[in-house]
Amino acid sequence: MYDIAIIGGGPAGLSAALTARQRNKTVAIFEPRGFSPRLSKAHKIENYLGMPSLGGKELMDAFVSHVKAHKPDIIEEKAINIFPGEDDFTILTGGNTYQAGSVIIATGAPSGQQYHGESEFLGRGVSYCATCDGMFFKDKKVAVVAALPESEEETLFLTEICREVLYFPLYKGDYPQHERLKIINAQPKAILGEGSVSALETQDGRFEVDGIFIFRDSEPLENILPSLELEEKAIKVDAGMGSNIPGVFAAGDCTGRPWQISRATGQGVTAALAAVAFLAKKATV
Amino acid sequence: MYDIAIIGGGPAGLSAALTARQRNKTVAIFEPRGFSPRLSKAHKIENYLGMPSLGGKELMDAFVSHVKAHKPDIIEEKAINIFPGEDDFTILTGGNTYQAGSVIIATGAPSGQQYHGESEFLGRGVSYCATCDGMFFKDKKVAVVAALPESEEETLFLTEICREVLYFPLYKGDYPQHERLKIINAQPKAILGEGSVSALETQDGRFEVDGIFIFRDSEPLENILPSLELEEKAIKVDAGMGSNIPGVFAAGDCTGRPWQISRATGQGVTAALAAVAFLAKKATV
Repeated sequence: MYDIAIIGGGPAGLSAALTARQRNKTVAIFEPRGFSPRLSKAHKIENYLGMPSLGGKELMDAFVSHVKAHKPDIIEEKAINIFPGEDDFTILTGGNTYQAGSVIIATGAPSGQQYHGESEFLGRGVSYCATCDGMFFKDKKVAVVAALPESEEETLFLTEICREVLYFPLYKGDYPQHERLKIINAQPKAILGEGSVSALETQDGRFEVDGIFIFRDSEPLENILPSLELEEKAIKVDAGMGSNIPGVFAAGDCTGRPWQISRATGQGVTAALAAVAFLAKKATV
Repeated sequence: MYDIAIIGGGPAGLSAALTARQRNKTVAIFEPRGFSPRLSKAHKIENYLGMPSLGGKELMDAFVSHVKAHKPDIIEEKAINIFPGEDDFTILTGGNTYQAGSVIIATGAPSGQQYHGESEFLGRGVSYCATCDGMFFKDKKVAVVAALPESEEETLFLTEICREVLYFPLYKGDYPQHERLKIINAQPKAILGEGSVSALETQDGRFEVDGIFIFRDSEPLENILPSLELEEKAIKVDAGMGSNIPGVFAAGDCTGRPWQISRATGQGVTAALAAVAFLAKKATV
């Protein structure tokens, strides 16, 4: 049971964790991918005040070591679902369950357009997590839509379970090789089925599959926490970074543009202090 | 003529200046007091991500040198009034006039309560600027209400002009000495007069004066730019840091709580990018 669960370990999540720890709260950061690979790859950051002309990796390393010195728990698992309960929140990852008194969402820039049928078939053939759902597709044929090279590890795990894995990479690179893995260069368009998934429609035709795994930089927010109010794909927040759900706050690129590091760290501090105030108020009721 | 005038050189103003310069805009920072004396006096800042455990002065020095490398104009004058014109803004300081295509207000935490009568008599005996208005009180008797030691220089200037200066310090310290200066330890309560100022009312009685200078960390925002919409003393801003006046943006503590450095720098970046977008749009009309 944590005071504050922080979903995402980029600049916003790390900044929130730092302030929350300084206010003596117990903090879990859910970060499966090693702290904002996107920022780490940035060539030079010129406008983070006080730290001139650092490479993205240097800056991210400075952020991470600053935060780690204050000892939040870092949970290297992807948060798949957040369930608001009566007194606290339940966070589901691939296989584990955590409780927290409040949640700060800091998942970064919202992922692109969802595929037609994606929301409809989520949990009925569509999954974002091989670790969580892979076993449902034992000896079956699945498709993987992979936005990033980081998807490869989860994909190789699927080849151990499934009869066949069709891999649709949306990035360039050296794709993984496996006897049960087939690389297909075709742009996915829609997810088809009746009751549950039956095929992935692409611009180069239809591929019949039993399940579709979609690996993106971040999940569509409306699937992590369906009651969360969005505005043009970003989380709608008030000046204190509160969402429409009491106890759920948001910070950084997931709250909208401009996508800037300083904006993210500043919102992280604001969200952390708002979460601290929320917990204090709850304790007095 | 500047692209962007930034009122205040604390973390928010400096961060805005940095981003605006990187977007190749001409920038003037109005900062009469040497870059946030309040922050410079802070013992330790623990939650500015990436720069652990710096003293306030070290952090501020890092901020200032980062920004100075990008060569904004730094104008060491107090901005007293901002006038929205048809195509640009006019900024009045003690004695000088500047033009800018857009304005970012970053004046820090709003000053405390105004005195009763202060707004009513502003420009009719009440002034915030000895350099601007001192000569109107030649050979007259004035009061100075001084929130900070930094007020002393302007006060000594008044002793050169005025017949008598009553100095009401609101801080502790070694007060300035001058034959025409009288230190009075009494809490001001109200400004009295009819048409123009006639006296300062305090808890220890009434002092008859012809003018009253009030020196605070920052002026009441409604007096710098009267049409600016406020909400609980803070500047009301949208998600892009825009105020109710097109072309006027705000960042940092003047937009409300929490008063945090990261929040200020983040809002500075957002305000700068919004000002850049505003100028681009204006250029295409």
